[in-house]
This record gives sequence, C-alpha cells and structure tokens, in this order.
Amino acid sequence: MARRNIPAAETATARREADRRRLEEARVREANRRFYQALENLSLDDMEAVWLPSPAARCVHPGWPPLEGWTEIRESWQRIFAHTHLLEIAIARVRLHVAGPVAWLTCLEEVHSQVEGRTDSAQVYATNVFVLAEGEWRLALHHASHLPELPPVDESERIQ
Amino acid sequence: MARRNIPAAETATARREADRRRLEEARVREANRRFYQALENLSLDDMEAVWLPSPAARCVHPGWPPLEGWTEIRESWQRIFAHTHLLEIAIARVRLHVAGPVAWLTCLEEVHSQVEGRTDSAQVYATNVFVLAEGEWRLALHHASHLPELPPVDESERIQ
Repeated sequence: MARRNIPAAETATARREADRRRLEEARVREANRRFYQALENLSLDDMEAVWLPSPAARCVHPGWPPLEGWTEIRESWQRIFAHTHLLEIAIARVRLHVAGPVAWLTCLEEVHSQVEGRTDSAQVYATNVFVLAEGEWRLALHHASHLPELPPVDESERIQ
Repeated sequence: MARRNIPAAETATARREADRRRLEEARVREANRRFYQALENLSLDDMEAVWLPSPAARCVHPGWPPLEGWTEIRESWQRIFAHTHLLEIAIARVRLHVAGPVAWLTCLEEVHSQVEGRTDSAQVYATNVFVLAEGEWRLALHHASHLPELPPVDESERIQ
C-alpha cells in the first residue's frame, strides 16, 4: 500500500512545486511591471519601492557607464526624472526564469520620451535580475542597451 | 548545557556557510574565466562547455539583436569566430553575487580584435548569469553592450 501511494504523493508534491513556481513567476512579473510603472510615473518613491536598497544593486541605462549601489542608482533616476516630461514604455517578449531566491528576466522596451522638449523613440533590450529579500522580489540589476532596428513587435506579444 | 552549545554550533554553521559560499563564488569566477578564455581561443568547443545548452539561454552581443536559445547563440559564435583573427579580452571590475543555484556577475571587458584585417578596440560592459546545472555552473545569459568613454581601469583592479 505504502509503495502504491508514492507515485500519488510524488504527483501531489510535483503539483505543489509547479503551483509555487507559477506563483513566484507571477510575483516577479508583477515586480517587473511595477518597475516600468515607476518609470512611466517618473516617481522616485515608486522606484525606491522596487529596487534592492543595497550597495550590491547594479544599473546600466542605455549608453551610460554602469552604476554601482542603490545610492548612485537613485541619483541617476532623480536626474532622469528631473529632465523628463513624458516616458511611455511598452514591454514585449518577456522571458522569465526563477530559480530559488533569484529571477532573471529579459524584455524588449519600446520607449517614447519627451526630454527637455525633444521627442524620441527607441528600442531597448533589458536584463532585469530580481532577488527575494525579506519575502519581496526586489530589482538587483537592470542592464539596458539600445537595439539595432528590429522587425516590429507582434501585437499579440505585447503585454503592457 | 545544550543552550550554551547553541552559539558555538551557530558559529560553526555560519563558518561552514561562509566556506561554502566562498567555494561557489570561486567556481563561478572560474566558469566566467573559462567563458572569456573560450572567446580568446575562438573555440566553439570551449564555448559549448561553458554555456547552458538550453532554449532558455540568452545572448546579446554588443549592438546585435538578442539571441534566444543555445542553437541560435552557438551559430552566432560560429559566425563571429569564422571572421575573427584575434580576440584579446581583459576583464576588470568583476562584481559577483551567488544566491542558491543562480549567480550574476557584471564586468568590464576591454576588447582588442582583428576582424577581417581591421583592428579595433572597445570597452564593453557585460552581465553574465550562471545557473547550477547538474553540479556545474553554466552560462545562461550574456548581455554585453558598448560603453561610453570611461576613465582607464586601475591596473590593480585588472584580474585577467
């Protein structure tokens, strides 16, 4: 009897594992959504709620030198938000992997901005690494770089 | 007595944890070194031994569109190696974090290349994500982008 029960127990364990993974994936996608929402809101407070407030945090804005630590990163957002009137970001081709307390996500950003009266559009590719800190998924690394001209994104793939 | 033993046990556990972390960090640094060695060797076999051979692998060469999956990534290295006569890469400012089965590492690449007779130098910033797969640290993501002009790297920070 006990032996016969093992497959059922394994199935239940596997099901619980899959449920837990889906839940964590949904939480990371939500954290990622809040990051881009903070960007569109030009809100330093929203940004502060998303990032890992640690010297270990890393950020590369497209074309910028790398920034190390939340203090430097926070200053960069402050500077960006001070000069930006409008930021619209559509996110596509999100690919996500979660393993233990770390998640890494890549996505395509279609960015429309008005910076000091100048309107600009750009396609940017981003790698975002999230870590589980005190039960919350926090952004620990954002590496964004300009893309060469790509074929237009399929509308069905657009999620935000 | 048992209660008095707890701090000593905790210290021993913490020490073991720290030893284990240092060991894993050393293994990730070694995997990262092998990646850049494979690049300098212009060796597809060496590259194959470093990467996670999975559709989940991601690669962005500087200025290229993103590549998804080991098959596409392998083809890109094949193409790059076929046209490259010399590749020298000095790595600096390595920052590494390991959490469970995932490690993320950022570094500065100083790249000197001879591609079809043309000599070029570039500063590139890379994010490398490694995952523990069957006991080996494998490269799951490489996102590299050109840097603006930066001050020269301090020789003491150069590690390769």
